[in-house]
Amino acid sequence: MPVAPFGRNLSAAFPPPVMEARAWAQSATLPPDMPLLNLSQAAPVDPPPEALRQEIARAALEDPGAHVYGPVLGMPELREEIAARWSALYRGRIHARQVAITAGCNEAFAAAIASVADPGDAVILPVPWYFNHKMWLDMNGIETRLLPCGAGMLPDPEQAAALIDDRVKAIVLVSPNNPTGAEYPPALIAAFAALARARGIALILDETYRDFHSAGDAPHALFAGDWADVLIHLYSFSKVFRLTGHRIGALIASERRLAQIEKFLDTVTICPNQLGQRAALHGLRHLGPWVAEERAEILRRRAAVETAFTTLPGWRLLGSGAYFAYLEHPWDRPSDQVAQWLVAAAGLLVLPGTMFGPRRDRGGDGSAERQLRIAFANADGDGIAELARRLAQVAP
Amino acid sequence: MPVAPFGRNLSAAFPPPVMEARAWAQSATLPPDMPLLNLSQAAPVDPPPEALRQEIARAALEDPGAHVYGPVLGMPELREEIAARWSALYRGRIHARQVAITAGCNEAFAAAIASVADPGDAVILPVPWYFNHKMWLDMNGIETRLLPCGAGMLPDPEQAAALIDDRVKAIVLVSPNNPTGAEYPPALIAAFAALARARGIALILDETYRDFHSAGDAPHALFAGDWADVLIHLYSFSKVFRLTGHRIGALIASERRLAQIEKFLDTVTICPNQLGQRAALHGLRHLGPWVAEERAEILRRRAAVETAFTTLPGWRLLGSGAYFAYLEHPWDRPSDQVAQWLVAAAGLLVLPGTMFGPRRDRGGDGSAERQLRIAFANADGDGIAELARRLAQVAP
Repeated sequence: MPVAPFGRNLSAAFPPPVMEARAWAQSATLPPDMPLLNLSQAAPVDPPPEALRQEIARAALEDPGAHVYGPVLGMPELREEIAARWSALYRGRIHARQVAITAGCNEAFAAAIASVADPGDAVILPVPWYFNHKMWLDMNGIETRLLPCGAGMLPDPEQAAALIDDRVKAIVLVSPNNPTGAEYPPALIAAFAALARARGIALILDETYRDFHSAGDAPHALFAGDWADVLIHLYSFSKVFRLTGHRIGALIASERRLAQIEKFLDTVTICPNQLGQRAALHGLRHLGPWVAEERAEILRRRAAVETAFTTLPGWRLLGSGAYFAYLEHPWDRPSDQVAQWLVAAAGLLVLPGTMFGPRRDRGGDGSAERQLRIAFANADGDGIAELARRLAQVAP
Repeated sequence: MPVAPFGRNLSAAFPPPVMEARAWAQSATLPPDMPLLNLSQAAPVDPPPEALRQEIARAALEDPGAHVYGPVLGMPELREEIAARWSALYRGRIHARQVAITAGCNEAFAAAIASVADPGDAVILPVPWYFNHKMWLDMNGIETRLLPCGAGMLPDPEQAAALIDDRVKAIVLVSPNNPTGAEYPPALIAAFAALARARGIALILDETYRDFHSAGDAPHALFAGDWADVLIHLYSFSKVFRLTGHRIGALIASERRLAQIEKFLDTVTICPNQLGQRAALHGLRHLGPWVAEERAEILRRRAAVETAFTTLPGWRLLGSGAYFAYLEHPWDRPSDQVAQWLVAAAGLLVLPGTMFGPRRDRGGDGSAERQLRIAFANADGDGIAELARRLAQVAP
């Protein structure tokens, strides 16, 4: 019987969606000819390439620094490598002193929010949201101002402007988007940066899926101008080098903001783990051609998914890109029931829109109940064909 | 010029003491015959034993699961190993479902606090404090109720009782203590647990340095009784297996509390890094004899430090144990000035009491200015002799 109290904010946050979906999968018994096709999480299923695994093993054996504490903001070489490569990619000016390495991109987001907002403040989040963003705001007592996406699953800066008051401290964008896959056009990102600057708030731009963007060019031009007054850029090494289990991300912000963020990172994780940092550094220096092929493969899968869903009756493709397709399903039942039912009925694990937006009884407009996210990047061409075949069989 | 706002709570927290001390060391120019003796951080200077490094390398090469996401609460095998070993050590009942693995013990503390307290609540912290505990409370807008330690650097449950009101949600104890080294007697720990239970608050017990306790027995008897209603136990794999750079800790609490803590861990780091978890598991299973020898060596160093400071005039040893000695210095200047001066004057990097307690101008009673923490475990017998020799040379 618990005597000790429970924090109200943490208790009010919803439970981890991925763990909930995993529980659905574990409780289902599937026939042997229909193994589970897990399209729930943006998680590469294969380990990193052999050369990268060998580099991690080499560091573990030969590099004593791989086992001891390092600087809170990360390995200097990795910060410098990021600054140089990002400066070239974005044709901008980023200094190593403006780069922090984090224990994954979720920690980068948590640190970014801590650096701009306090309990009682508010942050603008486009809907559908990335669920861990919503959870962090909830568990910190920060109000989420919902900004519903429109055509192409794009948020509208004018609608955002109407949501801003003295309590709003930041706008969060994710591009390419999780969960919708939408790639925000550079002009849209620029409009949000201009809005943030005009209203004296921060723009937090999460580019976790940048390396799978369909444009071969810089995804935005913010770094080419003065950026440090408003922009906080977030990045992840989890997808690009298949390092999800190593927990390495990055955050770029003004030096003055990093001095605050350093306090947060020191207090939460002391330093990013050292082997993961060495893996990320090796990847940046040596895996460029491998990443280019990975990107091409993801883009082929995206094309296959788009083709599949234009022929499946009753489905509507709302967005696709990077790892994700976002869809309206054809059933007359709420998406969380559909998603649970699809595990047993079709051996498919996908996530319901109710994990990415408010339900109708929490102020939603009903979209969350009609939508599903499919993390198609986890399936190869055969897997996507199988996905389409199974969905055709269970069609209403 | 920053336009975007800064969070008030994070801005009010003090900067990372270890990074500040590192900056003192970097700005000093030392003569070649007086290399820096760094006794600032509780950080093993040598890498883990060869067998453990080989196991990490093997996992990196051969275990695909070492590179992908795992469960939020950690590897099931590691949770089970901890439950079984802790149950035996403490002669108690701990189930694997009550164990969470974290990205280091700081994250465990952060999660524990999030699970009991909200902004505006209060938490009791003995003084001297572990600075990251104070920083986390400050950056979350949680009031710290200071409980000054008395004789033997021990906190008094009766004094603690007088600090409790409706806003107090937890008492935090660290034993063996950072920064004082004090080993809290089992009866004292039991008295604090009884107080927490009687007043309906949590007891957060950080046992990061447990493996270097001078008692060969269970350090307390809490797990032998009903504990899950009040106790949150924290642990670290950083010191015991020299894995500081891998960021693996643990937290034990009721299943109901872990369901809340799972939300926090998912949102901040998704899962603990996988190679570090494998290293911790290997260490628990195979490094018992090696740890016993490490502990014996630390106890020898502690004895050497105690001898050294009883012969050094003007110094007063307030506490010693695990990695630390806590001392009153003989100078008529505040400890932060003394600590900075010792870098250039004696090639010694130690931390001032002002990092572990409130300064006089922030409500302190002046103790913080008179005290220094020496992380002696980082120095071998020769290093401790050299420490004593250099301090004798600069004596006032």
